[in-house]
Amino acid sequence: MTYQDVAGFQTVAELRTAIRSGAFSGHTAGLAPGKLQCNIAIMPAEYALDFMRFCLRNPRPCPIVGVGETGDPAMPTLGPDIDIRHDLPRYRLYRNGQFAEDVTDIAAHWQDDMVTVALGCSFTFERALMAAGIPMRHVDQNLTVPMYRTSLPLESGGMFGGTMVVSMRPLRGGDVPRAVEICARYPLAHGAPVHVGDPSAIGIAALDRPEWGEAVRVAPDEVPVFWACGVTSQNALLAAGIPLVITHAPGHMLISEIDEDAAQPIWKP
Amino acid sequence: MTYQDVAGFQTVAELRTAIRSGAFSGHTAGLAPGKLQCNIAIMPAEYALDFMRFCLRNPRPCPIVGVGETGDPAMPTLGPDIDIRHDLPRYRLYRNGQFAEDVTDIAAHWQDDMVTVALGCSFTFERALMAAGIPMRHVDQNLTVPMYRTSLPLESGGMFGGTMVVSMRPLRGGDVPRAVEICARYPLAHGAPVHVGDPSAIGIAALDRPEWGEAVRVAPDEVPVFWACGVTSQNALLAAGIPLVITHAPGHMLISEIDEDAAQPIWKP
Repeated sequence: MTYQDVAGFQTVAELRTAIRSGAFSGHTAGLAPGKLQCNIAIMPAEYALDFMRFCLRNPRPCPIVGVGETGDPAMPTLGPDIDIRHDLPRYRLYRNGQFAEDVTDIAAHWQDDMVTVALGCSFTFERALMAAGIPMRHVDQNLTVPMYRTSLPLESGGMFGGTMVVSMRPLRGGDVPRAVEICARYPLAHGAPVHVGDPSAIGIAALDRPEWGEAVRVAPDEVPVFWACGVTSQNALLAAGIPLVITHAPGHMLISEIDEDAAQPIWKP
Repeated sequence: MTYQDVAGFQTVAELRTAIRSGAFSGHTAGLAPGKLQCNIAIMPAEYALDFMRFCLRNPRPCPIVGVGETGDPAMPTLGPDIDIRHDLPRYRLYRNGQFAEDVTDIAAHWQDDMVTVALGCSFTFERALMAAGIPMRHVDQNLTVPMYRTSLPLESGGMFGGTMVVSMRPLRGGDVPRAVEICARYPLAHGAPVHVGDPSAIGIAALDRPEWGEAVRVAPDEVPVFWACGVTSQNALLAAGIPLVITHAPGHMLISEIDEDAAQPIWKP
């Protein structure tokens, strides 16, 4: 199985229009193939410098691919016509470190001091792996990839820190080296895996009890492979307990106009 | 000619001690071979978010390799024992967009709201090119590399913007492709060249009149090759006219403990 534009959209513009109008509010996996999709975190400016420090010091889980101006919902380096208040299919609001609500538009929650930070996302390397014939078990089984807290320490940045969250995909042993090579080509999408094999070595007690997503069985001829995960940044934002953070809802990413293979995520006309 | 530790230092720690004490205040070209050297910009925190936005949107001229905490002179992701107030051989102070003075220590100028941003530097790719047998004419002739303003537009970020500054190195035509391949391996050190050939195409009127550095003759069998240059960021900082900016003095870089070949500039014990 490989990704395809399962929803039938022909162009990124058509998809963006459907998302913006609210006509489409589903997952973005498999949509806009070849375009970089992004984790999104929106926060008041007073926290943005620390958050950017934190991300820059932890580029594997938190690869910054774009930053908006304070109070401006455009993301001109990611595409010519993005309005971050409307252009995610679904958003998640957290207040004081607690889940508040999911919404499909944040115009009512936007503030003049908001800063948007976009991070790369695992859809990019998953597509590349599947294109190379390396199966993604969670995709085949229509599950959300399992994610785990680990003992891997992060570099702290201001008020943000903690340990890394990883995602796990079972691979056949013979596929591991090629998967590492392929993923290493995408440093803006978490890059190469951070660990292969024994989960307990990175502080994971039980593969069948992920903290996020759904458990995926590792077959006898497979080995669990772990990638740095964008949930790491959400986790750090929540732990800091800041008054309001808006993120994408899981799997409901920003579709950018940047090619996944671009060396640098700067949109040009 | 290839770089060697011309000053005779055996270790980075020995060199750092000499710089910190003031015993060494010279250029850092050829010192600590294999270690990432950094452009430095130090500014009040109120300008740092915009500056980081600007750099993230212009990764070719302004590749961020480290950011300090507000008011903290340590740079823990670049090395275990860096004190940015003492560890550059020479600093340049600009007040309100104008050159103020060069100093060898900035303890007297440090403020509680200072933020240090470190950017990659051309010494990295120059060393790699020379190691591959591609001569650097300005090094052979003991000249400072020539640098030029161009018409290449930058992505603006907050108060920062303008056009790109480039450095020029003459290469034999047959060396150009290999030089591009080698430099592309170092995205944290300006990456591949941005232009090859006709200077007027990027707004350079006369190769023999560089804005910074010294003119280097292009021989008949050579072509001028242009790289994005870290002076771009200094230029943008000056144009913004902020009250106090401290940078490295030209050629007097921060020596980090990061290997030049590191995929990510995060120091680990």
